[in-house]
Amino acid sequence: MIKIGHIGLGRMGLFHAENISQMNDAELFALCDLDEEKLAKEAKRLNVKKTYTDFDEMIKDDEIDAITITSPSHLHTEQISKALKAGKHVFSEKPLGTTVEQCKLAEKAVEENPDQVFMLGFMRRFDKSYQYAKKAIEAGKIGKVYMVRSYSQDPTAKIEGAIAFGPHSGGEFLDMCVHDIDLMRWFIGSEPKKVWAIGGCYAYPEFADWNDGDNVSALMKFENDAMGFLFAGRTAPHGYNVETEIMGTEGIIRIGSVPQKNLVEILDSTGIRKEISQDFIERFSDSFKDEMKEFISCVKEGRKPEITVYDGTAVSEIAYKCKESFESGELVEL
Amino acid sequence: MIKIGHIGLGRMGLFHAENISQMNDAELFALCDLDEEKLAKEAKRLNVKKTYTDFDEMIKDDEIDAITITSPSHLHTEQISKALKAGKHVFSEKPLGTTVEQCKLAEKAVEENPDQVFMLGFMRRFDKSYQYAKKAIEAGKIGKVYMVRSYSQDPTAKIEGAIAFGPHSGGEFLDMCVHDIDLMRWFIGSEPKKVWAIGGCYAYPEFADWNDGDNVSALMKFENDAMGFLFAGRTAPHGYNVETEIMGTEGIIRIGSVPQKNLVEILDSTGIRKEISQDFIERFSDSFKDEMKEFISCVKEGRKPEITVYDGTAVSEIAYKCKESFESGELVEL
Amino acid sequence: MIKIGHIGLGRMGLFHAENISQMNDAELFALCDLDEEKLAKEAKRLNVKKTYTDFDEMIKDDEIDAITITSPSHLHTEQISKALKAGKHVFSEKPLGTTVEQCKLAEKAVEENPDQVFMLGFMRRFDKSYQYAKKAIEAGKIGKVYMVRSYSQDPTAKIEGAIAFGPHSGGEFLDMCVHDIDLMRWFIGSEPKKVWAIGGCYAYPEFADWNDGDNVSALMKFENDAMGFLFAGRTAPHGYNVETEIMGTEGIIRIGSVPQKNLVEILDSTGIRKEISQDFIERFSDSFKDEMKEFISCVKEGRKPEITVYDGTAVSEIAYKCKESFESGELVEL
Amino acid sequence: MIKIGHIGLGRMGLFHAENISQMNDAELFALCDLDEEKLAKEAKRLNVKKTYTDFDEMIKDDEIDAITITSPSHLHTEQISKALKAGKHVFSEKPLGTTVEQCKLAEKAVEENPDQVFMLGFMRRFDKSYQYAKKAIEAGKIGKVYMVRSYSQDPTAKIEGAIAFGPHSGGEFLDMCVHDIDLMRWFIGSEPKKVWAIGGCYAYPEFADWNDGDNVSALMKFENDAMGFLFAGRTAPHGYNVETEIMGTEGIIRIGSVPQKNLVEILDSTGIRKEISQDFIERFSDSFKDEMKEFISCVKEGRKPEITVYDGTAVSEIAYKCKESFESGELVEL
Repeated sequence: MIKIGHIGLGRMGLFHAENISQMNDAELFALCDLDEEKLAKEAKRLNVKKTYTDFDEMIKDDEIDAITITSPSHLHTEQISKALKAGKHVFSEKPLGTTVEQCKLAEKAVEENPDQVFMLGFMRRFDKSYQYAKKAIEAGKIGKVYMVRSYSQDPTAKIEGAIAFGPHSGGEFLDMCVHDIDLMRWFIGSEPKKVWAIGGCYAYPEFADWNDGDNVSALMKFENDAMGFLFAGRTAPHGYNVETEIMGTEGIIRIGSVPQKNLVEILDSTGIRKEISQDFIERFSDSFKDEMKEFISCVKEGRKPEITVYDGTAVSEIAYKCKESFESGELVEL
Repeated sequence: MIKIGHIGLGRMGLFHAENISQMNDAELFALCDLDEEKLAKEAKRLNVKKTYTDFDEMIKDDEIDAITITSPSHLHTEQISKALKAGKHVFSEKPLGTTVEQCKLAEKAVEENPDQVFMLGFMRRFDKSYQYAKKAIEAGKIGKVYMVRSYSQDPTAKIEGAIAFGPHSGGEFLDMCVHDIDLMRWFIGSEPKKVWAIGGCYAYPEFADWNDGDNVSALMKFENDAMGFLFAGRTAPHGYNVETEIMGTEGIIRIGSVPQKNLVEILDSTGIRKEISQDFIERFSDSFKDEMKEFISCVKEGRKPEITVYDGTAVSEIAYKCKESFESGELVEL
Repeated sequence: MIKIGHIGLGRMGLFHAENISQMNDAELFALCDLDEEKLAKEAKRLNVKKTYTDFDEMIKDDEIDAITITSPSHLHTEQISKALKAGKHVFSEKPLGTTVEQCKLAEKAVEENPDQVFMLGFMRRFDKSYQYAKKAIEAGKIGKVYMVRSYSQDPTAKIEGAIAFGPHSGGEFLDMCVHDIDLMRWFIGSEPKKVWAIGGCYAYPEFADWNDGDNVSALMKFENDAMGFLFAGRTAPHGYNVETEIMGTEGIIRIGSVPQKNLVEILDSTGIRKEISQDFIERFSDSFKDEMKEFISCVKEGRKPEITVYDGTAVSEIAYKCKESFESGELVEL
Repeated sequence: MIKIGHIGLGRMGLFHAENISQMNDAELFALCDLDEEKLAKEAKRLNVKKTYTDFDEMIKDDEIDAITITSPSHLHTEQISKALKAGKHVFSEKPLGTTVEQCKLAEKAVEENPDQVFMLGFMRRFDKSYQYAKKAIEAGKIGKVYMVRSYSQDPTAKIEGAIAFGPHSGGEFLDMCVHDIDLMRWFIGSEPKKVWAIGGCYAYPEFADWNDGDNVSALMKFENDAMGFLFAGRTAPHGYNVETEIMGTEGIIRIGSVPQKNLVEILDSTGIRKEISQDFIERFSDSFKDEMKEFISCVKEGRKPEITVYDGTAVSEIAYKCKESFESGELVEL
């Protein structure tokens, strides 16, 4: 049984904690959060033995094998470094850091502790449909990949939270598009060399206050000449929509281009329709679980995860270049 | 140029008249209807040379080559017979007759005038998707057909008309299901030998006044052991829906199981949806045209249409047996 | 922790055992099977404390709280009765029994042990899409249900197993259609009063040897006049296909009518396509888990499951009447 | 009856000629082509009274009311100008000209003949689905449009023709993307101000010989800040695919994102699939007809078409800027 110390009890933090608590080969051993009341309540509910309000204290706990980090983004790098130095295996939610410099510090910490597992939370890679696509591509079923289009859309229904969280989110490119950037690199197998990003505040001018848009897009040219197009928005009328299209010289794969909540079709006065997922937890529920299973497996088996600290840096670097292009209006080289 | 005398200016009658008037190798030469005002108006609009209020007079017109019949169903047989005897080629809307005896009379008239073209209006056979399916089946692409399921649904939005027209329609089996019965025979290539029909008035008790249902179904066993299932209803919430599934030992074909108005998908607060056709003219617009083209071609080329007078009798006979089973609650042999 | 004694290590038995072994509030405590080698291997793999080759011995084990039965169908009733008498809670795979008389015996055993939980494995009810449909119907979203169509299709790819297992399966109505019958009763909220079943051996004459068909169907009239149509086949070219359509006076719900393996669409020389699940474990993987969770919850909370022993009897009774009609060719009353 | 003189008997030219010959209020009066044999054959087949091998001769014919131009692209401008000067109404296939200077000359000719009808062949606007989308947008159903994505893909199956025609086509941006550019401007209601275009020869290096790619894309920022993304390719494995997505602040419309040949779904060993159209004539057959009907109506009614000569210039100008960006690798301002 791998003993886990977990920091962060926000929505995603709680979801990760619940997933860990339901695993057979891991124990949700300790929880850490500043909110003592919440900490006590969740520790009781999830049957957790220890609680901490101080991260530095938790990582000193000799019984803990691994740390799972779901704290606010700007704390990730420091906590990753400290936990690694304390001899713990580390899983951290994306992003690796909120600046490229931070990412480089995280890289250093990982390099200095080569025997420990470090894994970053790009959960989309664990989705069954994305896994299926990756395997088909590796098997050569669509030939050489020359174009990836990736969409990430949050529902208008959640716009208030997006505005409230916006100023501290790093903006759409760093907060949301990192997933699309990760998928593009994964499917194309190359790095972007040029990017042009545009967008605007089409419905919610608030986002302009922190140089962000409510809907943005970016076109990239990769080292191997492949094309990448990403679109991210916060005003999807129909729900949470993540879709990716991978074009190859022999075939095309689309994932989620007909998004859906379940296998139900409703025939009523609106026509024939399918409802869709309303947030990332509904859509990627199984992926979050499979991602955590993979982390635990790596710890148990002394294996290194496919997703490395360098992926974290590369994705952040590209997201920053997108943001730079979006702000300047110019083409940016990487 | 084939000169056409056309009877009937109801909704479908007018649609046929317009189609004829737009053909290159036929002329809509005469119109016949009891409503003189409408007759004058439509003759002018469609640039028709002659008008008649008396069918018997129209068929005496030596300039006319062919008669197209879209009068009320109970008049079909008599008008078919008269027109054939007058030496005209005849196209008649379904049904061939409102009783099997009438159908037999029509058969006799066709047999006595073997050099003239007679064609019955089962327009679904001319739909591009149904044609495609038929060709795939004939080419052996789905193996041996062992099951056909066919749905015909009218929209709730048109229920008032259905109730008003109901008492004179012959009921759902004779008025609507004849199309499904024709398709089943066409795709299976055999005749039903046993049928059980059920249904009821689930939303509109009015239909019980003339021993009909607002939604009905029938299961049939065919001579060659294949299965046939038909469903017909008047309360489709989403519009006009005609779909057919043909199962073969090597493959399955579905036609219209994702019904649609056009290629538009709408993503809004209801989810992701397609609108669908609202009536048979919208859905089968091209089929009505292609059907009439085929009739004109047969007349010009002295060819006999694939759909014969015997199809009309067989379909009516089966529809009556469905009705008998529906009314008695018992299994009926053919 | 609820301690489970589990009998049966066939494919579905193993799948249930694995699901139990991964639960937090239940322990897979004992395994029972005649195959000692398999028993030892699986007990080790799943970390199970005790093994039995004799069911009677296992149910004497005082440490065991509940018995889960996945033995061959003809043993179900006896094992259910014995386990209940031994004071255990019982989950049994369908069918309840292989004759209606057996079902009645199971009813008696359940009635004599009113404080214990008994649950039957109709896993489709636990599928998220079926759950969603049920809730929508209960909320009145589609008005009054008047028609249910339910399909169950096994892939041609598995025909050899179907033929080998066929003589001992009870036939398609008892082995497969029980699921569709359960769904019809669940959605319609009434019992069938008349049924006509047909079908044949269209591709594999072997099934005739035990009075079965490779594809069969049945039309039913329910007490409340609703219609039910089921189709079950063993020659689906595209995979494992379970779909259900529920028509109500205000709306229509379709579940799985566009079957699929995942959210991937493939665009290649065949057109645009989706692959589908290849067997019931792939399609209903989560439902099997949720079903077992519900059983454990009922045991822990002293609750009775929605699915009762009487559902088991009713479904078997209807399946037998379908079989009777299929064999006699006649309409059968219930 | 409007008398038409038609030039060009290539594939699209013949299709236009056939459409004109089937109209009720127009007469295909004269044909012009350099290939005398073809000219004679088609004139006979389509029942055309006069033939010309010299365009200048045809436009002198006083009986002719209107000229329809489907000659090679580089001849369009001159023929448009001459026909207008000769007092004829003019329909021309796109592009308006092969250089922006040519387009300006065409503008001048149109301005100097203000009483004559001039219309350019952007047939996609006449497609029923695109019409439906346009009306929904004008009715405010999706709020303010902020993003349009448009795809145009030719099937790999036709790659040989694309390579043969390539050097004289003007390249993918001028030959194919003009349609997507026209749709973007039409739906967004604004003009692009900046564009970045990329792409490459991923499967067929031949296209590099004339500075073209086998798959290309372009991202544009419009004057009103809306985003436009176009993708055009020649290696679609599944057929001819044109799809457009229009995102608005209140809803999203997708046209053709589930492309299809007809309403048939095929369930076979590949899964569940739909076939799609194989070329632009199959996909836009009705649009070509409706476009020509609109031209004839405009001539008869003295109306001006919605599509003007300025649309032709604007679209060509944008396509050239795309090409410039594609060749230079730089961001280009308009």
